[in-house]
Amino acid sequence: MNYKCIAFLVLILLTYNVNLAQSNQSKAIENFKPSSVNQPGKEYPQINSEGRVRASISAPNANKIQLDLGGVKYDMVKDDKGVWTGESEPQDSGFHYYQLNIDGASVPDPGTLYFYGAGHWGSGIEIPASDSDFYAVKDVPHGLVSETIYFSKLTNSFRRCFAYTPAGYTNDIKARYPVLYLQHGSFEDETGWASQGKANLILDNLIATKQAVPMIIVMDNGYAYKPQESNARPVSVFEEVIINEVIPMIDSKFRTIPDREHRAIAGLSMGANQTMRIVINNLNTFTYYGGFSGTSNYPSSEVIDPSLFLNGAFNDGKIVNKQLKVLWLGLGTKEPAPFPESVGAFKAMLDKQGIKYIYYESPNTAHEWLTWRRDLKEFARLLFK
Amino acid sequence: MNYKCIAFLVLILLTYNVNLAQSNQSKAIENFKPSSVNQPGKEYPQINSEGRVRASISAPNANKIQLDLGGVKYDMVKDDKGVWTGESEPQDSGFHYYQLNIDGASVPDPGTLYFYGAGHWGSGIEIPASDSDFYAVKDVPHGLVSETIYFSKLTNSFRRCFAYTPAGYTNDIKARYPVLYLQHGSFEDETGWASQGKANLILDNLIATKQAVPMIIVMDNGYAYKPQESNARPVSVFEEVIINEVIPMIDSKFRTIPDREHRAIAGLSMGANQTMRIVINNLNTFTYYGGFSGTSNYPSSEVIDPSLFLNGAFNDGKIVNKQLKVLWLGLGTKEPAPFPESVGAFKAMLDKQGIKYIYYESPNTAHEWLTWRRDLKEFARLLFK
Repeated sequence: MNYKCIAFLVLILLTYNVNLAQSNQSKAIENFKPSSVNQPGKEYPQINSEGRVRASISAPNANKIQLDLGGVKYDMVKDDKGVWTGESEPQDSGFHYYQLNIDGASVPDPGTLYFYGAGHWGSGIEIPASDSDFYAVKDVPHGLVSETIYFSKLTNSFRRCFAYTPAGYTNDIKARYPVLYLQHGSFEDETGWASQGKANLILDNLIATKQAVPMIIVMDNGYAYKPQESNARPVSVFEEVIINEVIPMIDSKFRTIPDREHRAIAGLSMGANQTMRIVINNLNTFTYYGGFSGTSNYPSSEVIDPSLFLNGAFNDGKIVNKQLKVLWLGLGTKEPAPFPESVGAFKAMLDKQGIKYIYYESPNTAHEWLTWRRDLKEFARLLFK
Repeated sequence: MNYKCIAFLVLILLTYNVNLAQSNQSKAIENFKPSSVNQPGKEYPQINSEGRVRASISAPNANKIQLDLGGVKYDMVKDDKGVWTGESEPQDSGFHYYQLNIDGASVPDPGTLYFYGAGHWGSGIEIPASDSDFYAVKDVPHGLVSETIYFSKLTNSFRRCFAYTPAGYTNDIKARYPVLYLQHGSFEDETGWASQGKANLILDNLIATKQAVPMIIVMDNGYAYKPQESNARPVSVFEEVIINEVIPMIDSKFRTIPDREHRAIAGLSMGANQTMRIVINNLNTFTYYGGFSGTSNYPSSEVIDPSLFLNGAFNDGKIVNKQLKVLWLGLGTKEPAPFPESVGAFKAMLDKQGIKYIYYESPNTAHEWLTWRRDLKEFARLLFK
């Protein structure tokens, strides 16, 4: 085969690929329906059976509008009425943050409800999952999600947390309940778990079918800093806030069982990293730990020396095995580096130390909320039993 | 004076006026500070001591951006870095909904928290009020705001309401509490009162200073329709939902005092109109009524015939006086037509019927949330005493 022949073949292949890409983009199956997290009465954004997202907005005088989703900016196209429409490639099942870009301005899509993620309140889209039943709103007894404001002396500020109390909490006024402290990830806040996380619905459904025991869930804000001195770097006091302020406040405001056997702590990503440190420093306070897509060695994937890591807290595997009834690690099968590597290094250390743990993989999900909803569902079933 | 002289005078006056307007616009006092309802860490929008709002957004490729606030669109100006900035005329104290218009697209300002009003989730701005202390977050015992989901047979749908329970509710588990049912206005929803309405903070502060008795506040969604038959007009069943579904659900979920002496109902604007009908049709269920900027004759300002109005419910003034301990009407002094005229016609009917009522005017506020925060503060002090 001479080089001309090869060049011709390459040309054919390139042309074929380009055609493939274009037809892929244009051949969206026309069964789009409004997203379940749209504002009341809003027709857009929509999702089709492939998981493509179609956005639409009226902006007669704009030069360029893009749908900014999953790290890709998709050009939208203007019709003769000044309405811009465009769609994405198929997305993973579950919840995704996104925004619109109008002539350079990144703004929320006026069609959706808003969620706190990526450091701002912005739009979200929910791609229906095959297992969405476990977080669906059903006609079962529903718990309450309560917003509570407290003054934190450690941070010298008013802070807010949300508490889920299970159905029956308000009626059976003698019953006392175990507590799961549940943390969000980086650039998220205390609203995440009971909104895009669906923690309340997941527990409502688990408790109604007796798969989990009734429990309280406390969702605080993982960002907590010492009052800042001039020019000093912010110093996190989140561990102290949880241990010295939040737990006593919750134990006084709610009918908890205030002992270590009835306390669990878990978190996602940054929250997993934070709560692993908290649990290992406070084994007299908690009995259960859940790390969803994160470990405290993040972002390192290097071999962990247990005599050095977290001040040697994992050095004596017997103590950890005795104190923690459940040590849970979860990860989505599509998570990007360095999550699999970092969690993998941590698992290898646990294996070496003979420390028992449960490792859960969420099928076909990345570093996103469907992974963590599934983690919570599986983890909550193991608690306080 | 000849016509030339008059023309000259007019020209001078016109010029003077134009100059006045321009200098008014340009002479904003440069003491702008971030709004209290901005997202964490966001510098814009800002407010100065005159109550002007300054918005700012990066949009290098936009043709035109406007700040859309209080029914006026203010042109913003682009700097050499592609950042658009502009300010409004001075605004009334209190909370206002607003949005940005980018090349014809109406979108939320990415700088603010979001609030449901005008039929969508959008931006809000808070102009500091001289009396803002009564709704400030203070170091007093704080109640909880709870989200509860319930299935409504009347609408065949899941619905959501929020309930405020006062500080102490979770500790003193034998105490039972009176309940205020509190409704939002048109194109708002069940989130309004505990967000832009500050109902929880207002009650926290009143209860802490013993100006109000501890009470539960229930905030439901005023839009409730029968399952729709094909082509039929939607039929509101909100009254039936409140009486037959919400009240029994609240009395079972919360430790209420479930009798008429310990139940109040109030609402703003559309909510005032709705709750007036509900209270007058259900005098065996409620003892207190608050109409904030609205009455059921809205939008009419015509003389009311009490033998016809609401099926003659106000015809026997003695019954109304006996059954309602408080009949409250509130209005902002700057409210536009037809609110003053409509409430005025209703008041005239009450006077004619010898029905006792309290009339409250909120100084220097229009048909907006500061009027209703003040209404709630004054009204709540009169309840259950």
